[in-house]
Amino acid sequence: MTDRPASPARLAARMRAIEPFHAMDVLARAHALEAAGRSIVHMEVGEPDFETPRPVLERAARVTAKGSVPYTQALGLPALREAIARFYAERYHVEVAPERIVVTAGASGALLLAMGVLVNPGEEVLMADPCYPCNRQFIRVMGGEPRCLPVGPETRWQPTAELLGRHWGERTAAALVASPANPTGTMIDHAELGRIAALVEARGGVLVVDEIYHGLTYGLDARTALALSDRVFVVNSFSKYFDMTGWRLGWLVAPPEYVRELEKLQQNLFICPSTVAQQAALAAFEPATIDLLEGRRREFQARRDFLLPALRELGFGLPVVPEGAFYLYADCARFSSDSFAFALEILERAGVALTPGRDFGQHLPERHLRIAYTTSRPNLELAVERLRSFLASR
Amino acid sequence: MTDRPASPARLAARMRAIEPFHAMDVLARAHALEAAGRSIVHMEVGEPDFETPRPVLERAARVTAKGSVPYTQALGLPALREAIARFYAERYHVEVAPERIVVTAGASGALLLAMGVLVNPGEEVLMADPCYPCNRQFIRVMGGEPRCLPVGPETRWQPTAELLGRHWGERTAAALVASPANPTGTMIDHAELGRIAALVEARGGVLVVDEIYHGLTYGLDARTALALSDRVFVVNSFSKYFDMTGWRLGWLVAPPEYVRELEKLQQNLFICPSTVAQQAALAAFEPATIDLLEGRRREFQARRDFLLPALRELGFGLPVVPEGAFYLYADCARFSSDSFAFALEILERAGVALTPGRDFGQHLPERHLRIAYTTSRPNLELAVERLRSFLASR
Ligand SMILES: Cc1ncc(COP(=O)(O)O)c(C=O)c1O
Ligand SMILES: Cc1ncc(COP(=O)(O)O)c(C=O)c1O
Repeated sequence: MTDRPASPARLAARMRAIEPFHAMDVLARAHALEAAGRSIVHMEVGEPDFETPRPVLERAARVTAKGSVPYTQALGLPALREAIARFYAERYHVEVAPERIVVTAGASGALLLAMGVLVNPGEEVLMADPCYPCNRQFIRVMGGEPRCLPVGPETRWQPTAELLGRHWGERTAAALVASPANPTGTMIDHAELGRIAALVEARGGVLVVDEIYHGLTYGLDARTALALSDRVFVVNSFSKYFDMTGWRLGWLVAPPEYVRELEKLQQNLFICPSTVAQQAALAAFEPATIDLLEGRRREFQARRDFLLPALRELGFGLPVVPEGAFYLYADCARFSSDSFAFALEILERAGVALTPGRDFGQHLPERHLRIAYTTSRPNLELAVERLRSFLASR
Repeated sequence: MTDRPASPARLAARMRAIEPFHAMDVLARAHALEAAGRSIVHMEVGEPDFETPRPVLERAARVTAKGSVPYTQALGLPALREAIARFYAERYHVEVAPERIVVTAGASGALLLAMGVLVNPGEEVLMADPCYPCNRQFIRVMGGEPRCLPVGPETRWQPTAELLGRHWGERTAAALVASPANPTGTMIDHAELGRIAALVEARGGVLVVDEIYHGLTYGLDARTALALSDRVFVVNSFSKYFDMTGWRLGWLVAPPEYVRELEKLQQNLFICPSTVAQQAALAAFEPATIDLLEGRRREFQARRDFLLPALRELGFGLPVVPEGAFYLYADCARFSSDSFAFALEILERAGVALTPGRDFGQHLPERHLRIAYTTSRPNLELAVERLRSFLASR
């Protein structure tokens, strides 16, 4: 198989619309350079650089020592659904019945199930452009059409109720927003989110809010959309705040009348989420774990507070201060009109890996780079120094 | 939320066709009886009653002790793809390039990806009736139509090339077969599978072969469809032979030109399969693990060899001896014309939980029960005794 394989004889048409991650090209080149002995600072990585918290690891070890790892209920372990409900009560002071919580294979699994029960072929889902690339594909798999609305720094890279209202049409089924968002790190103001929820409900649609970066907000606490309405679908995950990406565990909160439908879909498509991950996650809400995570959150904040002014000083455009996640979405138009080529150039010449805008949408990707601060402060300092000399020598 | 929730305001039409598992009704009643102090023999369970093998557990413990559990490559850990390739060489003497192997979230994930790249809305996939219930839903989610072909004991509950050829139509994209199958435990003869592969290829379609029950065959070894053709898609899993259901790990082998498409879909829908499970599964092919599993296989065979004649003697119709899996699909028409009601009656009066036929299709479900021997021999003996007195008293 050294030859390039032929194209598939029979390929579902949807696959033509489903894009690969272009960032993988950068990553592959970064790995090749590393294999050749070059030092690379990785700022393209969309996951925390922290270990899974010890209490979670220890609980996993206790469970695996027992040996029995059967399927769980499709909706997830009752104890975990209750723990998540308690987390809403403690952290957000919002009451969420455990019966409304569906444990899933990451936020990814939650988004697939949500689109599965909500979107008919030919229907549209409104979302921001730029946004998390996979959003578009969950909708396309269901035969729906992602409708990406250009947003920029004027609205902190977030859609507004006014924008969604203007684009809501006959065929619109739902709106999908994320706060904080990937790739921009910005949040939707709680009052605006309330207007969005009201608008979507008034139009007979469903609002899906991706809260995966909750817990990673700096200088303020995120408020959940569940405080605004119990008609929204809320997606969350153990991947980011809880540092559990590789465990593949998340959850979905839905209005009660959808739970049976979500259960059917989960039974059939997944059987259940990982039992090991579910058992381990029972320790994710313990005070010792939360203490640890809050310390890491402060570290992320310190990284942002170092990196943002440093990049501005180098000439990157960063007109808004993102409140959360671990990304900066930087305008590099001063240096290049092709962020993909520029990212490769930075990689080759400065040894810093960044993600070009093109994975995130069609709205000005060529002038943006996503810069993740998922690496230590010394590494960030090194990256800034490397960028400084690279830009000076250009 | 004590009231029954209203029906969802907006529900995708596909959900009307997606059925819940009716077996859950039996299971819920079984749990209620147990909670009330009744002893129940569980023969409705579709997973092995064995622990995950020690070497796998120990490898998981070593990995979690290290603490770093990041996302893996979308196609899976290279070392695991290589280990699976070696398994094909050692066990089947078939060469499968690791590049053709996609690690997935169980056979479930493999089936979703396969249908995602193969089936367009409106296209059909041919399969046996009865068959594994979720098969129909992977196709429906993609907008396709499962076309279920009634099969019975005459063809050992399996489709033939002749049957598939007769039903192959303009809109047929693929055929999906399982050998050994759920709920019947029967296999497709290797020569017949060759004829099926040739037929499907001649018609311009794709054959998907679910080999999840390989390793659990009694008195013979299953041969993989990959020995017949490299145009087939082969689904497999760590769930059954490897006793790893709750880890959610499986794999898909595809023709090389589909791998890039499968990778795109996996990136977008799953990011990657569980890292913990992938690391643990590296120990699944070790000689010590295989020795253990072969012992368990002999135990399953002993259970089948006990249960089959015992049920025949009680008057259940079991005209064919299934070669594999851990199910008997028994005709109960002598006792009842409604296997669902009969299963509930057996549960209440004999304390034995069985799965009524209706989850598996439309072809004579009302006269069949799936009886799983996923419980110890003493339990099987107890169940037979209970059934004997129940039937005598009826
Ligand atoms: C906005 C957003 N949503 C969802 C996901 C999916 O994450 P997971 O499936 O690991 O929970 C990601 C991952 O990067 C993300 O950035
Ligand atoms: C025939 C068949 N295929 C696929 C599956 C899915 O199993 P898993 O996703 O655990 O690998 C099952 C589970 O019972 C099955 O019986």
